[in-house]
Amino acid sequence: MDETISLVLFSGTDDKLMAAATLAAGGAAMGKPVHILLQYWALDAFRKDRTGVDHGLSPEAGEKGRAAFKAAARAGQASWADTLRAARELGEIDIQACSQSMAVLKLEQSDLDPLVDGVQGIAAFFINAGSGQIVFI
Amino acid sequence: MDETISLVLFSGTDDKLMAAATLAAGGAAMGKPVHILLQYWALDAFRKDRTGVDHGLSPEAGEKGRAAFKAAARAGQASWADTLRAARELGEIDIQACSQSMAVLKLEQSDLDPLVDGVQGIAAFFINAGSGQIVFI
Amino acid sequence: MDETISLVLFSGTDDKLMAAATLAAGGAAMGKPVHILLQYWALDAFRKDRTGVDHGLSPEAGEKGRAAFKAAARAGQASWADTLRAARELGEIDIQACSQSMAVLKLEQSDLDPLVDGVQGIAAFFINAGSGQIVFI
Repeated sequence: MDETISLVLFSGTDDKLMAAATLAAGGAAMGKPVHILLQYWALDAFRKDRTGVDHGLSPEAGEKGRAAFKAAARAGQASWADTLRAARELGEIDIQACSQSMAVLKLEQSDLDPLVDGVQGIAAFFINAGSGQIVFI
Repeated sequence: MDETISLVLFSGTDDKLMAAATLAAGGAAMGKPVHILLQYWALDAFRKDRTGVDHGLSPEAGEKGRAAFKAAARAGQASWADTLRAARELGEIDIQACSQSMAVLKLEQSDLDPLVDGVQGIAAFFINAGSGQIVFI
Repeated sequence: MDETISLVLFSGTDDKLMAAATLAAGGAAMGKPVHILLQYWALDAFRKDRTGVDHGLSPEAGEKGRAAFKAAARAGQASWADTLRAARELGEIDIQACSQSMAVLKLEQSDLDPLVDGVQGIAAFFINAGSGQIVFI
């Protein structure tokens, strides 16, 4: 199962980033090359010294959802950033910042966490994605 | 057209669940095997005795969107849960709860609606998805 | 690289529509036929005389995100609607309104921007998508 999976990460809330990290880690563990493109609020969450802070949850999570999410973290569930770091040991994961979003948010690569491998335009994204799966989160 | 389509349902608002049910029913009617993985707030919406309650809409729906959505329901539009139940008669739909989300929300399968066929890890999800389409909703 | 990419546009906020327009334009520029299906709040944003108004951003954008987005527009970044109009010159983009969403929002095709080519049911959407990529935004 070596077809690539390409994830476009748009949302920067901890619940969506956790869903994304789970898919990335699962795909990498199955031997699929994983390409990640960071846009807008997901890109903002990958700023240096920001991956560990609380980015909130989707509005629909509600109070009960927030409590469940925090209890899981206290019980030892790895964060989305740590899940991605560990997944790098399991397989092939490439994380690129979208050049257009970098311009909108006025960021340089030196502003980003070392998890981010580089900055990429949309053409390079499509070349790497080929005819593989593309998932927008 | 027998390629599979795999839907990762993350959001639990009635508008996104309706969009998901429409894609699932349409895919099944076209002869595509449909795999559904329930995460977080979508999983919460599939709790027993909860599929029929009001789960709200996306924040952007606004008052006008909410009114239009409710008017459509009063005019006889099937709910997302009923659309999924009917789609089962049309084709092959498999609905699995994500094991990680089950742990976060502290749910057992007996807590879930009979629409849910089982509990699945991310590796099984990728095996079933194969090289077919993956859609995150 | 002539495989199709099919985008299901659900969200109607300017940030998600910009992400969608970027993917559509990028795909078209790479020679991929791009099929777009408009649902619910994205469909609402394509109403005639509405593509240029402010549709807000995702709640998570926050004040800083909103300011960055507006600054980029003032600095000359094309809107999502203008990006789609320009992309039509680059390649093959087909934009269809979902018939079910049209009924819920009580819209006729004459209510929509000329960017929208027609109204489509979910079966036609799957036939056009074939085994190509499907992305939900």
